[in-house]
Amino acid sequence: MNEKVKEFREYRAAMNEKILAADNKVMKRIFNLDTNTYMEGALSTKVKEMLGLVSSMVLRCDDCIKYHLEKCQEQGVTTDEMMEIFAVANLVGGTIVIPHTRRAIEYWEIINQEA
Amino acid sequence: MNEKVKEFREYRAAMNEKILAADNKVMKRIFNLDTNTYMEGALSTKVKEMLGLVSSMVLRCDDCIKYHLEKCQEQGVTTDEMMEIFAVANLVGGTIVIPHTRRAIEYWEIINQEA
Amino acid sequence: MNEKVKEFREYRAAMNEKILAADNKVMKRIFNLDTNTYMEGALSTKVKEMLGLVSSMVLRCDDCIKYHLEKCQEQGVTTDEMMEIFAVANLVGGTIVIPHTRRAIEYWEIINQEA
Amino acid sequence: MNEKVKEFREYRAAMNEKILAADNKVMKRIFNLDTNTYMEGALSTKVKEMLGLVSSMVLRCDDCIKYHLEKCQEQGVTTDEMMEIFAVANLVGGTIVIPHTRRAIEYWEIINQEA
Amino acid sequence: MNEKVKEFREYRAAMNEKILAADNKVMKRIFNLDTNTYMEGALSTKVKEMLGLVSSMVLRCDDCIKYHLEKCQEQGVTTDEMMEIFAVANLVGGTIVIPHTRRAIEYWEIINQEA
Amino acid sequence: MNEKVKEFREYRAAMNEKILAADNKVMKRIFNLDTNTYMEGALSTKVKEMLGLVSSMVLRCDDCIKYHLEKCQEQGVTTDEMMEIFAVANLVGGTIVIPHTRRAIEYWEIINQEA
Repeated sequence: MNEKVKEFREYRAAMNEKILAADNKVMKRIFNLDTNTYMEGALSTKVKEMLGLVSSMVLRCDDCIKYHLEKCQEQGVTTDEMMEIFAVANLVGGTIVIPHTRRAIEYWEIINQEA
Repeated sequence: MNEKVKEFREYRAAMNEKILAADNKVMKRIFNLDTNTYMEGALSTKVKEMLGLVSSMVLRCDDCIKYHLEKCQEQGVTTDEMMEIFAVANLVGGTIVIPHTRRAIEYWEIINQEA
Repeated sequence: MNEKVKEFREYRAAMNEKILAADNKVMKRIFNLDTNTYMEGALSTKVKEMLGLVSSMVLRCDDCIKYHLEKCQEQGVTTDEMMEIFAVANLVGGTIVIPHTRRAIEYWEIINQEA
Repeated sequence: MNEKVKEFREYRAAMNEKILAADNKVMKRIFNLDTNTYMEGALSTKVKEMLGLVSSMVLRCDDCIKYHLEKCQEQGVTTDEMMEIFAVANLVGGTIVIPHTRRAIEYWEIINQEA
Repeated sequence: MNEKVKEFREYRAAMNEKILAADNKVMKRIFNLDTNTYMEGALSTKVKEMLGLVSSMVLRCDDCIKYHLEKCQEQGVTTDEMMEIFAVANLVGGTIVIPHTRRAIEYWEIINQEA
Repeated sequence: MNEKVKEFREYRAAMNEKILAADNKVMKRIFNLDTNTYMEGALSTKVKEMLGLVSSMVLRCDDCIKYHLEKCQEQGVTTDEMMEIFAVANLVGGTIVIPHTRRAIEYWEIINQEA
């Protein structure tokens, strides 16, 4: 597995474990909700993951972006579709989103090569 | 037409006109891009409008939310689908999004009664 | 009851009801969590409400600020303590927080006169 | 004086007075710094007010925008210059800044007619 | 001393020195205010540091979070209390705060092991 | 060339190329606008770059800050002027901007030594 992907996933898993181990009820429920929100419903998981991604881009959180890029890739989002998500994010959020888009396109390429 | 809808649309149109009349090339191009971004492409206009809406919600801009609610309604987004967009926005953006969700559900109801 | 307080509370209650009536599981759980988070725990409700207030101030959400001002008042926060919360918010969040502080001090005065 | 300008200035002055009367040392120093920052220095007050305005626009604070529009007008900023500030704000900050630009152009017109 | 803590503190100290050496009066006063704001007053330093921390979390600034984690640790904040601060931050600020919470819990563990 | 400058520029150039190669019309126009916005106009390029910098600081984007620091340096902005831009950013945006100011002063020193 690519080093960047591996590092991201391992740190994420290890720290999530620490957070859950601290046994705070609110934190645990937030983690639980985070899983439920993206399940199939009136909207497909694919659309919801795109919604999660664009939100993460305009709020400019690189780790959240990576996570949703992985989920979008699993859901079969194509590169042309991805570029249109990037376009909405950069239009609505402004050029301040460009550096995050650079890191996003790099990670998108990596996870598509892995697949 | 409902007074809230009428007021929102008229102020928006009048001020957009003033901005365009000032004839600044960058501002005109941004307005132009704003139209092009949501056109049918690899993603449907419906999906893109949902992306625009969720971005507006997490960035907490009431006027942008109203605008995309109208567009989503034109694209046939149902109330169940809308509630799932609200859910993603409130999960990712936090409870700070709730007051905007209150105003969104009010406006969503109004424009659906108008339709 | 003061008109500003009445209007804020009534709109809030009416729209919360609409949101809950739409019966989206994620939204309902977020509302539920919102109540649980501020309950007595390792930290007192008083401290948690102050944490909720300062977060609302630096994120600049007037309705959230009003809500936590009411809760802080119920918890016996004094005006001197409140001013120190305002100070942290304006220092960390910058002068962009000042207009929200103006509206906060007005509302704080009103709810203290009501009490 | 135009009603919108009058209302903005009076509320601002009255609430600033309340904040200062509460006699919190940190708040008073922040207000004091707010005055000093925009004084003539290596950069002119005109340039600094433009910096204050563009910051207020990308952070999307309408009252801060109004305040700096007034200061820019006092410093002789022209409408063509103002449109270029709006352009930078809308490019960097994204279309989420457009609704604030609508309110800004309205206020800019009013204060220029007053002058 | 742990490498992460050492690196953070040394870079912070070295750059603060550069900023102060540039001898800009406003920057110096902001640094000065930053110290005064958290002093004992109507609220204890402990509560104020918790307010500073939660503000840093919802505004998502990792360096500010580290700084206030250190101060909270000095003030005797327990891990159970810390988890409740994290809970408020993640509820109000949304899941976008989770990656910062991961880095926070790692740093919190390190500085508690050092102590 | 300094390693930090080299790394920043090379990654930026390589990823911009990838984004443009993906051939999304909206993204290409946003990049194009980004160039046009800062051209000489009613305001000088120097002033516009300062506006771009202060916006990047209050929105807290390190890569955007680096980019505009380079452009400001090319436009002859002095260190005294730069400190006053930093002062506006830290006043308006709050102490949350300080960590970005630390990285900014480090980069500013590097690019001035290169020059």
